Amino acid sequence: MAHKGDLLSVRQDIRVVDATIRDGGLCNDFRFDDKFVKDLYNANVKAGVDYMEFGYKASKEIFSESDFGKWKFCNDSDIRKIVGDNKTNLKIAVMADVGRTDFEKDIIPKKESPIDIIRIATYINTIPAAIEMIEDCAKKGYETSINIMAVSKARTEDIKLALEILGKSPVNVFYIVDSYGSVYPEEARKLAEMYCEIADKHGKSVGIHAHNNQQLAFANTIEAMTQGVSYLDATVDGMGRGAGNCALELLLGFLKNPKYKVAPILKIIEEHTQKLREQGVKWGYDIPYMLTGQFNTHPRPAISFVKEDRRDYSKFNHELFDIINS
Amino acid sequence: MAHKGDLLSVRQDIRVVDATIRDGGLCNDFRFDDKFVKDLYNANVKAGVDYMEFGYKASKEIFSESDFGKWKFCNDSDIRKIVGDNKTNLKIAVMADVGRTDFEKDIIPKKESPIDIIRIATYINTIPAAIEMIEDCAKKGYETSINIMAVSKARTEDIKLALEILGKSPVNVFYIVDSYGSVYPEEARKLAEMYCEIADKHGKSVGIHAHNNQQLAFANTIEAMTQGVSYLDATVDGMGRGAGNCALELLLGFLKNPKYKVAPILKIIEEHTQKLREQGVKWGYDIPYMLTGQFNTHPRPAISFVKEDRRDYSKFNHELFDIINS
Repeated sequence: MAHKGDLLSVRQDIRVVDATIRDGGLCNDFRFDDKFVKDLYNANVKAGVDYMEFGYKASKEIFSESDFGKWKFCNDSDIRKIVGDNKTNLKIAVMADVGRTDFEKDIIPKKESPIDIIRIATYINTIPAAIEMIEDCAKKGYETSINIMAVSKARTEDIKLALEILGKSPVNVFYIVDSYGSVYPEEARKLAEMYCEIADKHGKSVGIHAHNNQQLAFANTIEAMTQGVSYLDATVDGMGRGAGNCALELLLGFLKNPKYKVAPILKIIEEHTQKLREQGVKWGYDIPYMLTGQFNTHPRPAISFVKEDRRDYSKFNHELFDIINS
Repeated sequence: MAHKGDLLSVRQDIRVVDATIRDGGLCNDFRFDDKFVKDLYNANVKAGVDYMEFGYKASKEIFSESDFGKWKFCNDSDIRKIVGDNKTNLKIAVMADVGRTDFEKDIIPKKESPIDIIRIATYINTIPAAIEMIEDCAKKGYETSINIMAVSKARTEDIKLALEILGKSPVNVFYIVDSYGSVYPEEARKLAEMYCEIADKHGKSVGIHAHNNQQLAFANTIEAMTQGVSYLDATVDGMGRGAGNCALELLLGFLKNPKYKVAPILKIIEEHTQKLREQGVKWGYDIPYMLTGQFNTHPRPAISFVKEDRRDYSKFNHELFDIINS
């Protein structure tokens, strides 16, 4: 395997993507107050973060606005209230799920929007629908990424085929998404090598979005990076669904580019995410998530287990075995 | 780099070492009740664990027996009370610190002791004293390992020299010890390669003892393993000083040998380690430990910070900077 960069030099292609509001929003139904979002925006600017993801562009026909905080929908006007004209180096991202976004209507032309990049989340079997969205968003003037979820369950030949098709689309970034937190560093490097090889051929970049079920989110992120992956997702305090994500403070402490600073992010942990924990919002590594990661399955049963405050881990282990083999 | 083993096969050279009582003992002054230790012993036998470390053989002239639980001293009779004649495949380990063990007196001949291996902990500058202990223990009939601590602060040429000298001693295992949790997977692989190269030459094995300051203990353990490291330290629930260790349940879930089982360890978490947490015993990944890891320094200031229930992470970050640069 080729090795890109080393532990003492700066890679100019690196882009740090803060996904706190989007992935963390899955823990509290996107009910962040404006002060949190504004403080995080300012902290990201100071920390040298390259992109900040504000949430989803979810369909208001499928989801009711009364059931969620506003970052489930990311109205351009709500983002504008936080970032103004965003005269900073921090770019603004939102996520749009295939089949759950009214993209024709809700994604307006780039020149009227504070958003810079639309991150399109898809499973491997809905690539054609994703390409339709990529083309629409690109035509409107946005950067786009394609985030193929649950990569640990996808077949290698299907991933390759999908990436070759996507290579011919206007998408800018292919994303490796380890939704189940099941990938080991060795696999992260191999996936990265495969994604990067096809990406290079088509002039695309590659990103990684890792989950922490096996305490491997940070390791997988920096190991994928050694193979040429350059868009690195992370969240403050690792906040994100289930076991959470690669912690932004770990990642910024690792990267050698002096533009990246940990201190502003420590302030956000001190002033915001710790309070959310105290208020009962739950995320982060825990035994049930470890088990769904080891079983290479969706964290759903683990999320229920944690919600119910259960502690009977060995019983849960048997239950999972039954769920998976039934 | 050579790559040993793969993600689907079994490596017969692997030895899993449970260090819960020893490294975890640093969190509660070794005050584990006998039921915990006995349950853990039985669980380790069922889980297929290869070695269980019971604690330190600390000098009673340096440390007072009234200040610590009995596993700080590991009298042979106390171990015997737990394991009887230990007619199992689980071997018994203790740790002996160079300069803090009365090894001539306290380490009795192997044939009278339930202990199988003496793990000798040293810094790079006390190797001659360590060799004296190795020779004494080997003569008494024990397996020995040499655990060179704070490897992230040692110079490569010093490590190589030490290992070449140790290669000529009767020691069985060279241990990579990342005391500060500062090593990245890329470095873990390089260290492993270096240790294994010298070990192979002298017919020794190599082990790794990782700390979780940067959520890399498990990743570094399995990555070092890909380079030929075979003795893998872990603790139940990651219990260990500061940020703790590689979690035994993560490691057993990863290893492919069907003799290794996670379920008995989940029971110990359920019935014991979670209770210790509730009783206020503190360990595991936390921001201050992350910072000492990033700064490549001893976790001492972070342990104090956590003990004092401080949350002002950004102030601590500045304090560390001053400590290190003063």
